[in-house]
Amino acid sequence: MKGYMGKMVMVDIGKKTVESRRIPEEWFRDYIGGEGVAVRLFYELMDPKWDAFDEKQPLIFATGPLTGTAAPTSGRWCVVYRSPLSKTLGASNCGGYFAPALKKAGWDLLVVTGKAEKPVFLFIHNDSVQILDASHIWGKGIIETEQMIRDQLGMQDVQIASIGQAGEKQVLFSSIMTDKHRAAGRGGGGALMGSKNLKAIAVKGTLGLSIADSELLKQASSDARKELFSEAFVRDELHPYGTPSFYDSIDGLGILPTKNWQRETFPEAKDKLCYKTYHEKLEVKAYACFGCPIACGRLTKIREGEGPYSGMHGGGPEYEAVAAFGSKTLVDDLTAIAAANHLANDFGLDVISTGQVIATAMEWYEKGILTKKDTGGVELTWGNGEAVVKMVQSIATRDKIGDLLAEGVKRAAEKLGKEAEPAAMHVKGLEMAADGVRASKGEAIVHATGSRGADHLRPYASCIDAFGYRDEELGIVGDIDYLEDGNKGWVKPFQELSMATNLLGVCLFASITLAIKASTWAKLISATVGRKIDKGELLKCAERVINMERFINSSFGFDRKDDTLPARFALNSYFESMGWDLETGLPKPETLEKLGLDWMT
Amino acid sequence: MKGYMGKMVMVDIGKKTVESRRIPEEWFRDYIGGEGVAVRLFYELMDPKWDAFDEKQPLIFATGPLTGTAAPTSGRWCVVYRSPLSKTLGASNCGGYFAPALKKAGWDLLVVTGKAEKPVFLFIHNDSVQILDASHIWGKGIIETEQMIRDQLGMQDVQIASIGQAGEKQVLFSSIMTDKHRAAGRGGGGALMGSKNLKAIAVKGTLGLSIADSELLKQASSDARKELFSEAFVRDELHPYGTPSFYDSIDGLGILPTKNWQRETFPEAKDKLCYKTYHEKLEVKAYACFGCPIACGRLTKIREGEGPYSGMHGGGPEYEAVAAFGSKTLVDDLTAIAAANHLANDFGLDVISTGQVIATAMEWYEKGILTKKDTGGVELTWGNGEAVVKMVQSIATRDKIGDLLAEGVKRAAEKLGKEAEPAAMHVKGLEMAADGVRASKGEAIVHATGSRGADHLRPYASCIDAFGYRDEELGIVGDIDYLEDGNKGWVKPFQELSMATNLLGVCLFASITLAIKASTWAKLISATVGRKIDKGELLKCAERVINMERFINSSFGFDRKDDTLPARFALNSYFESMGWDLETGLPKPETLEKLGLDWMT
Repeated sequence: MKGYMGKMVMVDIGKKTVESRRIPEEWFRDYIGGEGVAVRLFYELMDPKWDAFDEKQPLIFATGPLTGTAAPTSGRWCVVYRSPLSKTLGASNCGGYFAPALKKAGWDLLVVTGKAEKPVFLFIHNDSVQILDASHIWGKGIIETEQMIRDQLGMQDVQIASIGQAGEKQVLFSSIMTDKHRAAGRGGGGALMGSKNLKAIAVKGTLGLSIADSELLKQASSDARKELFSEAFVRDELHPYGTPSFYDSIDGLGILPTKNWQRETFPEAKDKLCYKTYHEKLEVKAYACFGCPIACGRLTKIREGEGPYSGMHGGGPEYEAVAAFGSKTLVDDLTAIAAANHLANDFGLDVISTGQVIATAMEWYEKGILTKKDTGGVELTWGNGEAVVKMVQSIATRDKIGDLLAEGVKRAAEKLGKEAEPAAMHVKGLEMAADGVRASKGEAIVHATGSRGADHLRPYASCIDAFGYRDEELGIVGDIDYLEDGNKGWVKPFQELSMATNLLGVCLFASITLAIKASTWAKLISATVGRKIDKGELLKCAERVINMERFINSSFGFDRKDDTLPARFALNSYFESMGWDLETGLPKPETLEKLGLDWMT
Repeated sequence: MKGYMGKMVMVDIGKKTVESRRIPEEWFRDYIGGEGVAVRLFYELMDPKWDAFDEKQPLIFATGPLTGTAAPTSGRWCVVYRSPLSKTLGASNCGGYFAPALKKAGWDLLVVTGKAEKPVFLFIHNDSVQILDASHIWGKGIIETEQMIRDQLGMQDVQIASIGQAGEKQVLFSSIMTDKHRAAGRGGGGALMGSKNLKAIAVKGTLGLSIADSELLKQASSDARKELFSEAFVRDELHPYGTPSFYDSIDGLGILPTKNWQRETFPEAKDKLCYKTYHEKLEVKAYACFGCPIACGRLTKIREGEGPYSGMHGGGPEYEAVAAFGSKTLVDDLTAIAAANHLANDFGLDVISTGQVIATAMEWYEKGILTKKDTGGVELTWGNGEAVVKMVQSIATRDKIGDLLAEGVKRAAEKLGKEAEPAAMHVKGLEMAADGVRASKGEAIVHATGSRGADHLRPYASCIDAFGYRDEELGIVGDIDYLEDGNKGWVKPFQELSMATNLLGVCLFASITLAIKASTWAKLISATVGRKIDKGELLKCAERVINMERFINSSFGFDRKDDTLPARFALNSYFESMGWDLETGLPKPETLEKLGLDWMT
């Protein structure tokens, strides 16, 4: 039979049952694989009435049809669930080496439901799936967790996805980590994993992959690699310098969130946070996920003699972390930023949300909404790098003020009262990342409408309207004014291409600047599954998933009124200056009184 | 007694009663005069439950305390009513020579209520107020109306405010005209006047003005004139070239509405619509309203041999008309634009709304929502100047398609159905003027929140964030990014200064670029009324009126949700491209069907 034969393993860690199932073939036809098939399955399994931490909530780990193949960047996996942070559909994507291991163990999908009585980890070795005790690992950070599991299993080549202390404590923006510092970061999948007492998933896969036409796949992979490196952005920036080099161009374009989005450029720190300084002060070497010729990651170490964090090392900070712990908080000390990043990774915190939460807290502190008493003596002032590092620790352990901040900016603001709202930069409860929505109107759309909340990656619209990338194949040609709101038709095909990478199990970065074309991905998937899938069909499958996700969110109660941006980007500051109520738009009683107009009420 | 003693005359043209009343002195203390006192009175007289054309609806004509004095630009009057177009408070402002006549007849306010059985006009000669038959003038254009009344009264120096055929037919965006081509244009005051069978108001005033300190007023007026002409914009642009010269800079900045706001620049017509061409092809000479050293108006004539409209002449087209009948419709023929302008003025149509309505209709025509059958054979295609001229005639007479368009874009779109909505560019039912809201974020605020709907004048925010004017006195200093949404605090003081000009009875243009300072206006009003009013108090009075207007609109059912911009400036085009419902944000049934996702519903 033609087409893709998929398998999933369903583990109820409460009931301790393991079940292997075929995945309906038409799901691969309609949704390709990866996030698409995972979301389709999620729709079957979920009930919108369940609480976010209900034991029945499924966590669905997915590989894609290209996972582990010769296709470039084929080391991606994703996890689909209901986000305890945003209450939307959660869909977090990650690299490393976990995906090919799971795929070579024979699984397209791994579904975990239920809640273990005590901490456990899963050990998947091809067909064998074991639920093992993790009580001794509970409380450990990511790096130690991975090493303890490898040592315990006696297999150094096992791949591990795990949570740190943050996930255990159900910090709502906890990530699921792999390969020490790669994160399925956004949306709090780590908190859901923690709520199930599931510390980790260890996988060893030794089975072969099924490739319909290896020769064709090899040829198409070679074409894809060429496309990738014929793109100047990949060849001359992302590959040689990694994501930290984005910082310079993003600051230069004025789309760098600074001082909790009060502005979008940080000129006074240009020399301190630019890539040149990063390279000199931190960088050790590049590293790559499975099958990736780009190698955008950077391993770093805080040099000896460089202050209190000397010696700390790990992956990143990537661009997002430099902005999250740097420009957003006005911290211009790269060593403090790196320390915050390394700690957040090891605690299993989403660096994007964490930095945003701290930036928001700094604004609250400045306004007196939080005081030194609340922070346990920490001076949470703009630019205070030491305070940022302390807050990361405090949040991960839910210690003191960290317990409030661990709930994310939306809930924390709700608890602190109305005057706390303006600083809470989020959409649908997910904290903003570090990509300007003021100048890039495409980014504004993506953030407002993204199925998982404030999302800068579905697609990374700035690439089109701020950085100027074009793609004839998608019909994205000609002038697109980065201020122009009039015609956002180009967002759709680009969004589909981006989603397609999530379905295939490859990296968004391979197409973020439209380097690898949709038609090339179509050739790669066709060669792999042995069924002719053209560009149009691939994009249509992506469109289908985008719509399915929107429908699922609607069952969770989200509708168009939720497709909005934080008030900071809208009219609120004007209403505030006028003394008008933000809800009703009417003059507030005190405004009327001040003007002697109270007789009007 | 200190302070300003004001008088109003209340005419019920149904009951044929005329009553003179004192205006409460504290109204002048709290609202200065002009629009402020008129709005305060409107609040007393109106009932939000009344239909827009209810006979009881008042039309309040107001002069200001500075009207007719030596203060520069002191020839302004305004009319306050409930707009039949937007259903908001209507407040239309106008120049010419009508205001000083009314003031010198002894009246600060003229209130007209009721409905005459047959067409009438008012003749106010100082204390004498007569209601005279206008049956013979009904059906005439503005120019003929003015002349017939002057001839009938045997007084060539009488000043007249009248309506044309458009107001008689209750075209919802009919203006009240004076001095042939000066319009109280926005909001449809002319339609309300027409509904009352009130064709015109003729005024002759020969009484003196009461000035508390003439010497001080003279000195302050001289200072004000110096401030005015020390401003390069006034001295080097507005005075020598008039408003048509705005076209070049507005197009250059990319805030020129083009093709019904699908874009905001019209480069292909640069040479044809620029001021140089206007000057060569149309301009005859400058003209000024009462007491105005700026003389921004332009008298024009379509030269002989310049096509079918040769010989037509009159005031304008001003900048707004060039954009309304030109760039918005893609018409690059200045003679057609001028012809449309002259006709609209004589019919008594608001040129801004009229041009916008036609541009909207062109988009409907392009999309097949209107057909050649609907237009009575007119090819309503982009750039068709002849069609624009025909549409002006058709609208003014409510002939064929004109009867639909005479209702304004909001109602016409409602009648044409949902697919007509995106092209209907309005806020709260008032058609957009020609000032970009995409790049100037201040303008976006003003348009979204304006008390009379899509308003570009309260204040003309582009002057601050796009053109870069500053005023230390108002605290509007330093960098204001024209893309920056973060802090709109500067809008408030500038809005107050703009409103102050409406209270004083002077021209917005005198302070639109912050030329005449708030403190100078304060000196002028203090000298006139003999009571020390400082800058802060003047602005506070303006703030009071702004808030009073907002409160009145709230009694009409408007609230914050109405403070919005047309969908074209928001996410709608993205939703449309995705096939998502604009209201719910959900995939439309046809989208689901196309994607084979209909099982999800």
